Amino acid sequence: MAPEQCKFLNMILRLGAVMFLLPILVFAGTQPDGNGVSPINVMPLPASRQVTPGRLKLDASSTVAVNGYSDARLERAIARMLQRLRRRTGLVLPLTVNVGANQSAALIVSVKEGLATYPKFGEDESYSLVINGGSATLQANTTLGAMRGLETFFQLVSGDADGYYVPFVNIQDKPRFGWRGLMIDVGRHFEPVDVIKHNLDGTAMVKMNVFHWHLSDDQGFRIESKKYPKLQEKGSNGQYYTQEQVREVIEYAADRGVRVVPEFDMPGHTTAWMPGYPELASLPGPYEIETRWGVFDPTMDPTKEETYEFLDNFIGEMAALFPDEYFHIGGDENNGKQWRANPQIQEFMKAHNFHTTAELQTYFNQRILKIVQKYGKKMVGWDEILTPDLPKETVVQSWRGYKSLDKSAREGYNAIWSTDYYLDHMGPAEYHYLSDPLPADADLTSEQASHVVGGEVCMWSEFVSEENIDSRIWPRTAAVAERFWSPRDVNNVADMYRRLDVMSVWLEQAGLQHLSSTNRMLRQISGTENLGPLGTLGRIASPEGAGTREKMNHHGTPSTQLVPLVKPVDAVVPDPPYRRQFAALVDALLSDAPKFVAGSDELARNFQQWRDLGPGFAALIARAPVLDTAGGRVALLQQLGNGGLEALQYLHSRKSAPADWKAAQLELVKQAEKPDPSLLKLPWLGSYRALVLAAADAAAAKSGNAHEWKQRVIDEAAKDEPKQKYTW
Amino acid sequence: MAPEQCKFLNMILRLGAVMFLLPILVFAGTQPDGNGVSPINVMPLPASRQVTPGRLKLDASSTVAVNGYSDARLERAIARMLQRLRRRTGLVLPLTVNVGANQSAALIVSVKEGLATYPKFGEDESYSLVINGGSATLQANTTLGAMRGLETFFQLVSGDADGYYVPFVNIQDKPRFGWRGLMIDVGRHFEPVDVIKHNLDGTAMVKMNVFHWHLSDDQGFRIESKKYPKLQEKGSNGQYYTQEQVREVIEYAADRGVRVVPEFDMPGHTTAWMPGYPELASLPGPYEIETRWGVFDPTMDPTKEETYEFLDNFIGEMAALFPDEYFHIGGDENNGKQWRANPQIQEFMKAHNFHTTAELQTYFNQRILKIVQKYGKKMVGWDEILTPDLPKETVVQSWRGYKSLDKSAREGYNAIWSTDYYLDHMGPAEYHYLSDPLPADADLTSEQASHVVGGEVCMWSEFVSEENIDSRIWPRTAAVAERFWSPRDVNNVADMYRRLDVMSVWLEQAGLQHLSSTNRMLRQISGTENLGPLGTLGRIASPEGAGTREKMNHHGTPSTQLVPLVKPVDAVVPDPPYRRQFAALVDALLSDAPKFVAGSDELARNFQQWRDLGPGFAALIARAPVLDTAGGRVALLQQLGNGGLEALQYLHSRKSAPADWKAAQLELVKQAEKPDPSLLKLPWLGSYRALVLAAADAAAAKSGNAHEWKQRVIDEAAKDEPKQKYTW
Repeated sequence: MAPEQCKFLNMILRLGAVMFLLPILVFAGTQPDGNGVSPINVMPLPASRQVTPGRLKLDASSTVAVNGYSDARLERAIARMLQRLRRRTGLVLPLTVNVGANQSAALIVSVKEGLATYPKFGEDESYSLVINGGSATLQANTTLGAMRGLETFFQLVSGDADGYYVPFVNIQDKPRFGWRGLMIDVGRHFEPVDVIKHNLDGTAMVKMNVFHWHLSDDQGFRIESKKYPKLQEKGSNGQYYTQEQVREVIEYAADRGVRVVPEFDMPGHTTAWMPGYPELASLPGPYEIETRWGVFDPTMDPTKEETYEFLDNFIGEMAALFPDEYFHIGGDENNGKQWRANPQIQEFMKAHNFHTTAELQTYFNQRILKIVQKYGKKMVGWDEILTPDLPKETVVQSWRGYKSLDKSAREGYNAIWSTDYYLDHMGPAEYHYLSDPLPADADLTSEQASHVVGGEVCMWSEFVSEENIDSRIWPRTAAVAERFWSPRDVNNVADMYRRLDVMSVWLEQAGLQHLSSTNRMLRQISGTENLGPLGTLGRIASPEGAGTREKMNHHGTPSTQLVPLVKPVDAVVPDPPYRRQFAALVDALLSDAPKFVAGSDELARNFQQWRDLGPGFAALIARAPVLDTAGGRVALLQQLGNGGLEALQYLHSRKSAPADWKAAQLELVKQAEKPDPSLLKLPWLGSYRALVLAAADAAAAKSGNAHEWKQRVIDEAAKDEPKQKYTW
Repeated sequence: MAPEQCKFLNMILRLGAVMFLLPILVFAGTQPDGNGVSPINVMPLPASRQVTPGRLKLDASSTVAVNGYSDARLERAIARMLQRLRRRTGLVLPLTVNVGANQSAALIVSVKEGLATYPKFGEDESYSLVINGGSATLQANTTLGAMRGLETFFQLVSGDADGYYVPFVNIQDKPRFGWRGLMIDVGRHFEPVDVIKHNLDGTAMVKMNVFHWHLSDDQGFRIESKKYPKLQEKGSNGQYYTQEQVREVIEYAADRGVRVVPEFDMPGHTTAWMPGYPELASLPGPYEIETRWGVFDPTMDPTKEETYEFLDNFIGEMAALFPDEYFHIGGDENNGKQWRANPQIQEFMKAHNFHTTAELQTYFNQRILKIVQKYGKKMVGWDEILTPDLPKETVVQSWRGYKSLDKSAREGYNAIWSTDYYLDHMGPAEYHYLSDPLPADADLTSEQASHVVGGEVCMWSEFVSEENIDSRIWPRTAAVAERFWSPRDVNNVADMYRRLDVMSVWLEQAGLQHLSSTNRMLRQISGTENLGPLGTLGRIASPEGAGTREKMNHHGTPSTQLVPLVKPVDAVVPDPPYRRQFAALVDALLSDAPKFVAGSDELARNFQQWRDLGPGFAALIARAPVLDTAGGRVALLQQLGNGGLEALQYLHSRKSAPADWKAAQLELVKQAEKPDPSLLKLPWLGSYRALVLAAADAAAAKSGNAHEWKQRVIDEAAKDEPKQKYTW
């Protein structure tokens, strides 16, 4: 071994605890507070926040007082916050709340009125939180606003050598949009009540206020109907919510300031209704629950009065169960095949002068609308429902782009934005974060713009089970929650990620499993606690999105509802922090041209780990055949590890790598960018490509031109980056 | 840097994936199957098991058939097992069960009779599982026996390059003891229903059959009484089980073949009854729920008829709620102070010629017994209840040693063994594993021995919260479960640990958090996902036991029910695998004398990690004051890391370390063995001491005497090992 190498190895060993403290600030963006880093770790960032010198110390004597109006919901919210603070600080904070002015309290909560315990769209959620002396003062017009402020207070708590404290702040806060939702599709895969509850806690922690419950689809009907019990009996394989459970969920949500909007997707996406009630369909049965993914033919018959009688009874039953004033009827993706195949329906269309099935669907929607209205509800639907004669009180949920969103707003409909928030496409948080329901350049008058009332994150569940759903929803949804709540100009991606990393940990307090499910799932399939190379893979890979996944599945075993979601692709998380960590290391290295010392040790350790994955992984596969498809990715990683080490050597020796090496490496990256049967994606390949290009141009880096040299390399790498699409 | 060192560093870097595949077989013990390693990974090990060449392949076409008798409970058990297999293998196993002989099924389940859905003490749990052709055949007299066999089938499933399979086996199995329990104290800290359910699943997975629910204590009364609602209203701070929840738990347990035995500890340990009903006490109130730990004065008044009227009503209510034929009345640790302080009680004692408060308690027990019997129940109590005139149907739970256990058995009482199974003392699994309810040398006739009917693991909850209880109970309880089920001569500790490591992973399928709670809790207090040095500490430290912890607390802030259990001591696990991994490394190194290559690289990497803990930890403490007490342990670890690296250098250079180095190192170990305010224990210090002694004697190790040399070092280290006590 050459002395040079020896010195290099020695460096690697001195890494110790450095890496985990590396600041991850490698993204550009505007600066929310003048210096690019918000001074507080609150997410979503409050509308107006000033930090002043000074602090309010917290210790075991710190109490909370309610000054003036109080109600049980408020006191429960305070107790929850205190309980979370206890778990985080170890302080024996008194859990009881003093009602009545108490100037010695650490936090004084002052609410004007409680309003109904079930929250309403548009309800005042504003609050102010002022800390500048011996007490923090939280003022709000409503209990709902106080709840939002309590979460801010929790997140403000910090610690240092002198103990725990909250910094002096003046926060005046209110949401930018009134409708800030999370949709969970429990039709394709069922989610137990506990999973829903954890997610409701998470929803409230990031100040979102709508849980949109997609309760039926082709693959499952998930709620008990007492009027039509065959819906759940034959449509759910036993996996449905009883009405008692539904009431429990609604109460749980309301207690956290979250509305529950039920969705029953109609007239398409209704296969699971048909096994119990085939007469609803447009063609004769019998029907079975669909287990494949896609758009299917079974559609309600919009020409029979019996259909509307059924739906009148059913919607009446559900409207009584769900207190929210909105009722979602779906209305998306009807392929019209059954309608075209049924002569009676064709005749009906002719008689009504309908030229397309879309027109027939409009007719259906109008009929449903009447029923929904009859039961005192306003309708919500996917953007396909936007047709003439739709009453203005309807809310249109846009999933097909700004065109439909803007159209709704222009026509005076309240509209919510979901197009870029489809979590199943496994995009990075920043992708969702930077998509604004109301971009600065939106071509809308201010009156029209006021109809864009918010948005919803959508968790479609083809590839989501109760084991991994938390890691699909969180922490990414927290970034979107900030988009919904904070001013438009809060859009510094680096600062968002800095706060998201903290928020992600607080979200675990909700019982969410997003930070622990990967390793648990990998343990289950490998049968060992010592994951070794599988742990490495679990940390650095991410899942391919739903589109790619469906496409790949058509080339092998089709994925259906029956296939257990337990492979590595199901365990790894979208947008793993490793992507940013690796990017930061490469950035540090290239910024340190022509010395190339910064980040080098840690990168080498990473590459060595990849290079050495083989034997350990082979041993795992040998006893866990379920891992078999991951073999290709592991082999590629080994090659990338070797290549990375070679790149470092070229950079350290300041000799440009030869052209054939460069070509081979770039080819390797291209190959690694293609989806393979494991469906494991390596989301940091762009940074690796930059490293390769840098190595191939190492000799050109000089002290004088370091910055331009790095920029050239990065620009070249960016050119080859494949364009990613995270919507349908 | 010397070339020698360079080579050494280079070796360190080549470790890669080696460590996690190291076999951990460093303990002595008898050999269950002739070669020291049982041929199957089943826990508890079946009474009789033969493995023969051949295998039954499992794939997506593998079905389960029920041949003959069937019931819903059996079918649910089969469906659960299949669901778990799906999650583990990714195979699309059909979840439906064919009823009726089906020779093409992979598993044919054949049961003689179902018996009642609620299991009974002594019920037949035997089964046979024979796999030697195209089907596995599971035969049992009862549904309960079939459930036990299904778990064995699940654990037998293996995988290799050819896919999943079960090996050909002939298993004839039945439990050694009929009473195999887990007690959870929900009085001192409450545990939500979900936590109880997960633990019931775990209980069933390791073939235990009793859940002993310690429902009341000084610190909490945890069940709804409709007759005396102030019990829960004033005795639980709102943390209690409704009767509906209790019924749900009982049904859940019974469905898994687990009985539920309620305990209401009386007449002592009853402070929490008194806030609602002070008239029950032996001295006038008012009373408050006790928040400290220990033995307290409040005791029921055994001289008033009103006490028995109350208890008659209350026990009647509870006897109707709990279907089990046994009812636990506690009866332990009454200090007698209130009785001695009350003149009327003193008079009563005189009148009845009672000379001690123990005699008065016997009187109380006799009265309670009558009530328990009146409601059709048999009594269970802690060993203090063993007094003359106790009816022979009573079960005595021994927590004070073999003396009381043997006495019960000799006098003809069924007795259960708990003395060595107190999990709160944080002993290693092997300590519990090697304590036999009926040791080979027990001085009992075989008739007397037949009265030793089993045992119970006890989870007292002074230092247990819903966040960490799983890691206190599991996986250690699985080792005791094997003691209860398998033949006495199944006692090879190394083989137990080998199987326990696998079982630990399967236990996660129950939803248990024992493998993920450490890091989650450390994330909560540190506020970051990148635990760095805290992660290292979390992996290598274990908590001090309850005794030490109470003692240490008297020297600082007293620990009470109000203190959040969130510090590192609460997060780390008892008996961490690291203890064995470190021991294996040191053993490998010393066994490789005088070369000292084996294990050396990995040890060096560990020592370097410890040595470098300082800066990262300082950064964490600086923002998370809750970590402050851990500073001392971290400083010690840094010294131990340095010492370990020096020891390796002495060994590699074959030069004995000087006497002052040895003395300093041994002093360091002694210091580290003493409990400190962090309450973090380093359970591998014995192995470290052996390394120090080896380094101090390095020059003496020669090729010719390597084995004797190593033995001498190990014997010397063992001499200094402090004796550990894991009982009260």
